[in-house]
Amino acid sequence: MKQEIAKLVELDRQRTLLTHIGAVLGWDQETYLPEKGIEERSEQLSLIEGLAHEKAVDPQIGELLASAEAAAETAEDLSPEEAAYIKLTRREFDKETKLPSEFVMEYAKQASLSQAAWSQAKSANDFSLFAPHLETMIRMNKERAAYLDSGRKPYDVLLDLYEYGSTEASIAAVFSVMKKDLVALLDKIAGQPPVDDAFLHAPVSAEIQAKMSRYLMDAVGYDQKRGRLDTTAHPFTTTLGRDDVRITTRYVENYFPSSIFSTIHESGHALYEMNIDPHPDFRGTRLAEAVSMAVHESQSRMLENFVGRSRAFWEKHYPAIQAMAGEPLADVDVDRFVKAINKVERSLIRTEADEVTYGLHVIVRFELESAIMSGSLAVKDIPQAWNAKIKELLGLDVPNDRLGCLQDVHWSMGAFGYFPSYALGNLYAAQFWEVMQEQIPNLEQKISRGELGDMQQWLKVNVHSKGSLYLPGELLQKVTGKPLDPSCFARYLNKKFS
Amino acid sequence: MKQEIAKLVELDRQRTLLTHIGAVLGWDQETYLPEKGIEERSEQLSLIEGLAHEKAVDPQIGELLASAEAAAETAEDLSPEEAAYIKLTRREFDKETKLPSEFVMEYAKQASLSQAAWSQAKSANDFSLFAPHLETMIRMNKERAAYLDSGRKPYDVLLDLYEYGSTEASIAAVFSVMKKDLVALLDKIAGQPPVDDAFLHAPVSAEIQAKMSRYLMDAVGYDQKRGRLDTTAHPFTTTLGRDDVRITTRYVENYFPSSIFSTIHESGHALYEMNIDPHPDFRGTRLAEAVSMAVHESQSRMLENFVGRSRAFWEKHYPAIQAMAGEPLADVDVDRFVKAINKVERSLIRTEADEVTYGLHVIVRFELESAIMSGSLAVKDIPQAWNAKIKELLGLDVPNDRLGCLQDVHWSMGAFGYFPSYALGNLYAAQFWEVMQEQIPNLEQKISRGELGDMQQWLKVNVHSKGSLYLPGELLQKVTGKPLDPSCFARYLNKKFS
Repeated sequence: MKQEIAKLVELDRQRTLLTHIGAVLGWDQETYLPEKGIEERSEQLSLIEGLAHEKAVDPQIGELLASAEAAAETAEDLSPEEAAYIKLTRREFDKETKLPSEFVMEYAKQASLSQAAWSQAKSANDFSLFAPHLETMIRMNKERAAYLDSGRKPYDVLLDLYEYGSTEASIAAVFSVMKKDLVALLDKIAGQPPVDDAFLHAPVSAEIQAKMSRYLMDAVGYDQKRGRLDTTAHPFTTTLGRDDVRITTRYVENYFPSSIFSTIHESGHALYEMNIDPHPDFRGTRLAEAVSMAVHESQSRMLENFVGRSRAFWEKHYPAIQAMAGEPLADVDVDRFVKAINKVERSLIRTEADEVTYGLHVIVRFELESAIMSGSLAVKDIPQAWNAKIKELLGLDVPNDRLGCLQDVHWSMGAFGYFPSYALGNLYAAQFWEVMQEQIPNLEQKISRGELGDMQQWLKVNVHSKGSLYLPGELLQKVTGKPLDPSCFARYLNKKFS
Repeated sequence: MKQEIAKLVELDRQRTLLTHIGAVLGWDQETYLPEKGIEERSEQLSLIEGLAHEKAVDPQIGELLASAEAAAETAEDLSPEEAAYIKLTRREFDKETKLPSEFVMEYAKQASLSQAAWSQAKSANDFSLFAPHLETMIRMNKERAAYLDSGRKPYDVLLDLYEYGSTEASIAAVFSVMKKDLVALLDKIAGQPPVDDAFLHAPVSAEIQAKMSRYLMDAVGYDQKRGRLDTTAHPFTTTLGRDDVRITTRYVENYFPSSIFSTIHESGHALYEMNIDPHPDFRGTRLAEAVSMAVHESQSRMLENFVGRSRAFWEKHYPAIQAMAGEPLADVDVDRFVKAINKVERSLIRTEADEVTYGLHVIVRFELESAIMSGSLAVKDIPQAWNAKIKELLGLDVPNDRLGCLQDVHWSMGAFGYFPSYALGNLYAAQFWEVMQEQIPNLEQKISRGELGDMQQWLKVNVHSKGSLYLPGELLQKVTGKPLDPSCFARYLNKKFS
């Protein structure tokens, strides 16, 4: 059986290489591709996705798996990694073999064109430029869901892709508790004196913001020899190779916190990717991939919010950022700064929302996706429906689609079912955070001295390195000793904001 | 037969897409790849080269070709494009099928590692870091030559790859005439009053040089929506897609002409690539590729030297560049500037050599390559042999390898036999130039008004668009009415420098 596993690993590595090549093409498309290069780029992406898919559905895998599974039943020297790898490969192989090659290639091509159209629509503030592509992505996602499991609701099938085991109902249940918690806390905060953050809106050049970003990447332990920072319309992290995990940010001249916190956020994703290594024998395989989007998001949001917006973190790093900013922060002490970056306020843009209102932005998207996938919401009605939901949950009027339903890249890529992961990520993060606080003595003091080593090591050993060795729920149980417990996040927020 | 051709075209397009994907990986490696990403990148390149090679040697091609060739013998409605495509595909298929897949993959991997080692060796000025990789590239090129045609001298086989039909002997014959012409002209110039170009060595920031480069790209008609400019150790042009032809340059702070003329040079290459279109049915095929390295070089060197260093060109563009440069050119009029950028002087770096001494740099490399490939020169002796040749032909002492045998990227990529193309390119350029002068009324005046449209159109129609429709010699005959005539270049130089 060892031989079968070795052969499966070899095939898997070829697929991973192709996936990483696709990531190079995708990264370049978002950063440096000349305007007219998009047409052929989408053909290139389609070809690579098709080749990666071919590798993933290679009939050899089916044969090797069947034989490995049979042998595993009686094997005595099966390591946990080997056992997990066989199960994982089975799950993914079954999933992949259900999608026809032509569909995968066409999907990749359409997603690439759709993303480009979204980008144009957003800068032109014109939803109609994006609408036909969105129609296509919705139609193709319903087709995708039908290929994968025609017996289940399409949205359930798609949610499963990002967080294995979740359903619309299970998420709706968690979100209804979270909604109550957040609304109650928001009411409490409304009674507090207003926070002055005007100084955060003073102009800071993109050049200085980039310098801040690079400083903070170093501060949180991002190895710039294993990645880089670039500028894109929407910040993201992408893995182009095991030692090439790149992040991007964007510079808003009149609000520098936008870039620095998205840099810390993406660095959290990148550190996870850089540290995955469940076992040397399984490098370059599915076992060395992140276990889920929500666990991924727990790492980015923990670094951005739990660490990056803490008083302790800025104790060490505020002087450097203050000096780089110059005039705008000259008369602002660290306490005022920390208060300002934690200001809670109902706002329009998810990626710039505070920790308390953020969950409400996710609920807006979750409820709309649910309606889109069930067919009760048509594409042409999305702008209006979006605006109504924002009014309902956040009490705000949306002045235009650029600040409304065109703000996020996800749907243009066909990522329906992804948004809930962001909120689940907060819940996971809070649960990891409570345990980490218990297990690392004086963590806060260490953070205030700029010593993040113990924390990074704890995360690496307990979470990052594991890759897909456990399912998300198993990982949580193993690390924290209990299943998902939403009360941790409520406790964290209440302690910080009350 | 039309069906066979259509099928061949379809297979060819897949190969081209993979080649372009490889170009994206290569471009990224030279521009933005994080330091530690190189190892996996070489695996990615190796995989893509392997896949492209698989496409190129697909047995279907052999069958389709055989049937198309048989039908072509009696066909009456065969277009020139179809006839040329069948011949070209046969030549390339025969060439490709001789190289085993594993060899091609290993070669790509080694070339990628070797290029990285060269880059390090060059910055550390330490030939020993590069030597073992150079050994490998030489060994693998001898193997390559043996696979392709074990009955011929390896260097002849390699020269054929870059300029179909050329041999070491035919090039040596042309070069011996050129050497005589150049040495005679150099002697004449030595008797002229010295040219003052000290002001070209005043510091100009990389930022300003980049601005100059972008201005000049526009001036020569490079469409920046179909490509872009970046910075690399060694300037190059690369085709990542039919509408994505990128160039690079480098900024030498104390010698801004280095960047601006390499930008014009690479723009010449890029314009050729962007304009290739022998027939819409053959887009994305080998017929829509440049015919040879020497013809390519004729386009870059014509734009850089014949146009870009002419008095007429600067009549129009000097005021803009002068204003960007500021202080260093404030008191320099256009005549002094044009004299300075045409200063003839024996120097160490090929890419910065003037038009007269340039050919001697190429002869140095040609003679060394010839000795390396025949086995009479060992890797460890290359630095010494290089320095001796430079002394012999240019009368200069080479102070270190960075300014000597480590200056060029070519050997690190395994491109033995490429260098002669540079000098052949000058000869082709001069021959095209003479005919173009006759056929475009008042060309010089047009250039002096910044109107390069007629010239670009002439080049597009007569040279660029043709792609590989004709062999290099056929193209020259068709456009100029005669075979290669080295006297054109001697006439051009003597007119300009006497």
